[in-house]
Amino acid sequence: MSRLELDPDRLFPAEQRLRELARTIHQRVDRRPIVSPHGHVPAQWLSADEPFTDPASLLVTPDHYVTRLLHAHGVPLRELGLGPDPAPPREVWRTFCRHWWAFRGTSSRTWLTTELVDALGIDRRPDADCADELFDKISAHLAGSELRPRALYHSFGIDVLATTDDPASDLGAHRTLAADPSWSGRVVPTFRPDRYLDVGSPDWATRLDELAGASGMEIASYRALVVALEQRRSYFADNGATATDYGPIDAGSERLSPEVAEALFTAARTGIADDGDLARLRRGLLFEHARMSSEDGLVMQLHPGVLRNHHRPTFERFGPDTGHDIPLASEFTLALRPILDAFGTNPRFRLVLFTVDETTFSRELAPLAGFYPSVFLGPPWWFLDTPDGLLRFRRAVTDTIGFYKTSGFVDDTRAFCSIPARHDVARRTDARYLAELVDAGELPLDEAMDVAEHITTQLPLDVFRLT
Amino acid sequence: MSRLELDPDRLFPAEQRLRELARTIHQRVDRRPIVSPHGHVPAQWLSADEPFTDPASLLVTPDHYVTRLLHAHGVPLRELGLGPDPAPPREVWRTFCRHWWAFRGTSSRTWLTTELVDALGIDRRPDADCADELFDKISAHLAGSELRPRALYHSFGIDVLATTDDPASDLGAHRTLAADPSWSGRVVPTFRPDRYLDVGSPDWATRLDELAGASGMEIASYRALVVALEQRRSYFADNGATATDYGPIDAGSERLSPEVAEALFTAARTGIADDGDLARLRRGLLFEHARMSSEDGLVMQLHPGVLRNHHRPTFERFGPDTGHDIPLASEFTLALRPILDAFGTNPRFRLVLFTVDETTFSRELAPLAGFYPSVFLGPPWWFLDTPDGLLRFRRAVTDTIGFYKTSGFVDDTRAFCSIPARHDVARRTDARYLAELVDAGELPLDEAMDVAEHITTQLPLDVFRLT
Amino acid sequence: MSRLELDPDRLFPAEQRLRELARTIHQRVDRRPIVSPHGHVPAQWLSADEPFTDPASLLVTPDHYVTRLLHAHGVPLRELGLGPDPAPPREVWRTFCRHWWAFRGTSSRTWLTTELVDALGIDRRPDADCADELFDKISAHLAGSELRPRALYHSFGIDVLATTDDPASDLGAHRTLAADPSWSGRVVPTFRPDRYLDVGSPDWATRLDELAGASGMEIASYRALVVALEQRRSYFADNGATATDYGPIDAGSERLSPEVAEALFTAARTGIADDGDLARLRRGLLFEHARMSSEDGLVMQLHPGVLRNHHRPTFERFGPDTGHDIPLASEFTLALRPILDAFGTNPRFRLVLFTVDETTFSRELAPLAGFYPSVFLGPPWWFLDTPDGLLRFRRAVTDTIGFYKTSGFVDDTRAFCSIPARHDVARRTDARYLAELVDAGELPLDEAMDVAEHITTQLPLDVFRLT
Repeated sequence: MSRLELDPDRLFPAEQRLRELARTIHQRVDRRPIVSPHGHVPAQWLSADEPFTDPASLLVTPDHYVTRLLHAHGVPLRELGLGPDPAPPREVWRTFCRHWWAFRGTSSRTWLTTELVDALGIDRRPDADCADELFDKISAHLAGSELRPRALYHSFGIDVLATTDDPASDLGAHRTLAADPSWSGRVVPTFRPDRYLDVGSPDWATRLDELAGASGMEIASYRALVVALEQRRSYFADNGATATDYGPIDAGSERLSPEVAEALFTAARTGIADDGDLARLRRGLLFEHARMSSEDGLVMQLHPGVLRNHHRPTFERFGPDTGHDIPLASEFTLALRPILDAFGTNPRFRLVLFTVDETTFSRELAPLAGFYPSVFLGPPWWFLDTPDGLLRFRRAVTDTIGFYKTSGFVDDTRAFCSIPARHDVARRTDARYLAELVDAGELPLDEAMDVAEHITTQLPLDVFRLT
Repeated sequence: MSRLELDPDRLFPAEQRLRELARTIHQRVDRRPIVSPHGHVPAQWLSADEPFTDPASLLVTPDHYVTRLLHAHGVPLRELGLGPDPAPPREVWRTFCRHWWAFRGTSSRTWLTTELVDALGIDRRPDADCADELFDKISAHLAGSELRPRALYHSFGIDVLATTDDPASDLGAHRTLAADPSWSGRVVPTFRPDRYLDVGSPDWATRLDELAGASGMEIASYRALVVALEQRRSYFADNGATATDYGPIDAGSERLSPEVAEALFTAARTGIADDGDLARLRRGLLFEHARMSSEDGLVMQLHPGVLRNHHRPTFERFGPDTGHDIPLASEFTLALRPILDAFGTNPRFRLVLFTVDETTFSRELAPLAGFYPSVFLGPPWWFLDTPDGLLRFRRAVTDTIGFYKTSGFVDDTRAFCSIPARHDVARRTDARYLAELVDAGELPLDEAMDVAEHITTQLPLDVFRLT
Repeated sequence: MSRLELDPDRLFPAEQRLRELARTIHQRVDRRPIVSPHGHVPAQWLSADEPFTDPASLLVTPDHYVTRLLHAHGVPLRELGLGPDPAPPREVWRTFCRHWWAFRGTSSRTWLTTELVDALGIDRRPDADCADELFDKISAHLAGSELRPRALYHSFGIDVLATTDDPASDLGAHRTLAADPSWSGRVVPTFRPDRYLDVGSPDWATRLDELAGASGMEIASYRALVVALEQRRSYFADNGATATDYGPIDAGSERLSPEVAEALFTAARTGIADDGDLARLRRGLLFEHARMSSEDGLVMQLHPGVLRNHHRPTFERFGPDTGHDIPLASEFTLALRPILDAFGTNPRFRLVLFTVDETTFSRELAPLAGFYPSVFLGPPWWFLDTPDGLLRFRRAVTDTIGFYKTSGFVDDTRAFCSIPARHDVARRTDARYLAELVDAGELPLDEAMDVAEHITTQLPLDVFRLT
């Protein structure tokens, strides 16, 4: 049997003096509450508080970081619990355990180890031999009260958790939680109108009908769409939302005249718009959302540059979010100029930028956040939210913007148990980076400690207007 | 006299604990056989087994890493032994020795030092004073039997060596070797059809005639070209090839209908195709090769993104491969979508991707290899196949895909003696990277040792289907 | 009170053996003269030699690295001393001191600390409490003779300082200095014709009139413009210039026929040129300047890829150079091909390339400088001229081109007191990088010492033809 262990000094630098500095800095933040201002955990899990049933359903099937790499090693998605004819959880778990070697060196390995050891009390490495034993042990453990969603929320030390929600949602789970006197946590919705900005989708008209239903008004014009969106933003804000989020294929924005906007809307609605029209309408709507943010103060998060559903056969069979969203080269300087020209120095407006293209860290993102008071940088996203990715981000942007124009860590996860694991990685990596600055004489230790403390909890609360 | 020495701990990290870990890991792989699945050493050298004559012809003139940097310091290419009126080897060697300082800090310096010390037994640094002495000493040494190509093949510990060959080649040297009972090595050809994919070349028609001659059939249509290529692939496979290779200016692919393909072929053949037509035909042929790979199982290697022969006056005088092939920004996500949509999950299909644009490591390559079972990542290529380039590659991709979706090291060299030197750099760099993972608590030592061993020999054998 | 201190080992690596190597190497260059071949300090400061009045005017208002980050934290530019109604220096200084925390981790913090401690004798960290005390102390100090511009020039150890000048300038301050027998320094002008290459500017015609005035000739044709520029280049060379400099939005060049050039000139002059025409004319003029450089031997510096004045409202109120010049993705391989095809191997021609897009370091810049004898790489520029940026540059290019195809450090600053601070960072970072090469067995210490010494002073003198 091979032991599964968590090194208390994990992710710290090797050199002894640096390591001690990193430890000292990390101790200051290790037990701080978790602020999770953007993620994909369903509020329903917390409102219903039903126990998780087994380790495959908890750790494997919902984590597309895990399923994509197993698929890359030839495992069909159905054997991972996905699609119309999924394998049963025990078989999924066996498959996962048999491929534990595939995760060597990956950040998933780091997160999963933390989850297994810290949250689930496992002390041996998954492999084919122990798969059933682990399955039974974890399943039994999950049946207990201390591993239910609400109990985990508290034991993880979460202070606030933001979900991601469709503007047509009635936010029922959020309202249930808010009305529940036995619930002492804080779960807030986030307004994510991607389905309505994706104006070239064949479903767009249907989606507008859904939005019309939710907002109780007809949407027969650009102007009506804007009013409906404003109405839903207001509903979200009334239910605790402080932010919106957008995931367009590029960051392009354009200020449209009312006449042009209506003409493009009509062309899109009647199916006569060409690709250029559709792109302009999408970019016009992004600009419009920035305008709304500058008025209602909801923080605008932008996650551009991912080509969704790269492999059409997989999409057709298994749907979205199945591991083949692939990044594209991104551009921000020209793309965001219309928005920043109009609202960049407006104190109500706030824009948090994320990227899957790390070339933009030093080239565009830090320069933009280093001038515009409205712009903050989210941490490295998706393929970059890893120990080395976090370090490359700090190295690329801190020289220009320091720490206080970043947003603090954002876990952005669908895997509930990975929340503390991901924040742990971020805190350790920041401690490592700060230790290096201290040792290199660039920052005194007392200031580094202040930075570590501030960026862990207070900074994300401030940036996302959660205070 | 200044001694030329090889540090036994070269390329290992400085910190003592890390260095010891790196040593331990490296010891496991230091003497493992070399698998060289892609390179440019002529099979003829091994079939003829004639001695090399002098150090300039062995180390300088054929190594465009060396000649390009000397040219950048103002040395005319003819003084390096190139072109119609080359300087004699002794003068080339003197020029090289006089410029030894120019290589300080370069990977060529690292490789050359290993070659001079390890393969040639030299213990002083080249300079103007000792040039003649070194020339005579090495020349004498080369005349001996232990430095002939076959002897070097064995003393380098090469297990298998793949060459790069034109589809019209009769693979005579490979066949000679295969028929030679005194030859115990393994040299396999690689099918590289670039000359026939370069459909805009003024020589294209002449090249098709050569291919027609080799395949014994007329090539008057797209369909005939495809059949001729299939026939030659089959001939290559029969002579030991397991892989093909492509070096287009971009990675673009397109599925053409038979009618469109024929029309584009005719337009190109008759000289009436415009740039857009030529690009579509080239991309259609790349797609066609992917289709063939999915049927015959030859591994498809893709080396895109280099603008060949940047300086026209040098090209006109000295020909190709003279040091002025310059990279371009590369794109894979959109470019490969047609191929991957069609064959990405086909178990016969395998695609090994290389890049000279390191921005694609984390942005496109790791995400693609992290989903598609057919896709593997070759190591950093050309300007990036250096100690620091190898480390940047591991740091950029391992978090997402681990080790087992990379191909293991590929030397891709024209400089025969640099093969062990380049593998040595790769093994030491991997040992360093693994040592860092171990020390940071991300991977237990026993697993790191397994990884090191596997990626050194077995992984490239598997990925390139050489088993 | 919190002490402000300079760590004598700042920016050196943590590991003890590496640190000692870095110290040893750094000692060799620590007190070497400063060669500053490109920057923005006005020659007028040295010719007039008037004392600086206060720390805000010296350290804050003219340093757009400082003002942009304070603006990003919500400080209006007028409170930093900019624009038509600037706050008085004491208030600017208070604002700066109150925001000292914002610079934690930035390179500005590193430079400012060096300036405050080394040049101005301050030993406590700026904060709201001590702002007035520091203001008074520094102001008094500046009134003394040892902190006047000429005294600082000498105490900084500057050997030669190049300014940046408009071709229409009479170089009055340079001529005054040259004629002053009490002045023993060396200040040379640099020919920067951006205003005349920006052919799409509404002011272009007016600018040509200025140039016509300076050159004493009418400029009614492309040919006349070229002759006027040649005449001014000659005037600059006669007054000590050894270099020119260009900051176009991209690096594009094109060889225009005389007929096309005249037609484009006429179209631009008469306002009928479209965007494509204007781009061609601009690129044609860049090519023309390369042709001139190949004849008069003035070194051509190229600083492309920055979108100037991103935020129009700020530009309209505060003018250029106010912190919102934002980089764009850059391309060199295709862009420079016309120039390099024509002049790349011409021994009179020299091109020093700078970039704000670090993706081009390994992909395009090192490959170009690694072949063309005319091409050298300037150090990381602007958002990249930081401790970590300098290190990333060395790591990305040295494997391919070593040290001797880079230009040595270039401070490129408007902040006079930051000159020694910036060179100090560069020397320490190079010492660190060289120490790593030595420890990794890639370069013997004696060669590393030679490199450090050569790249600090002699290399920039040679590359910029200042010898």
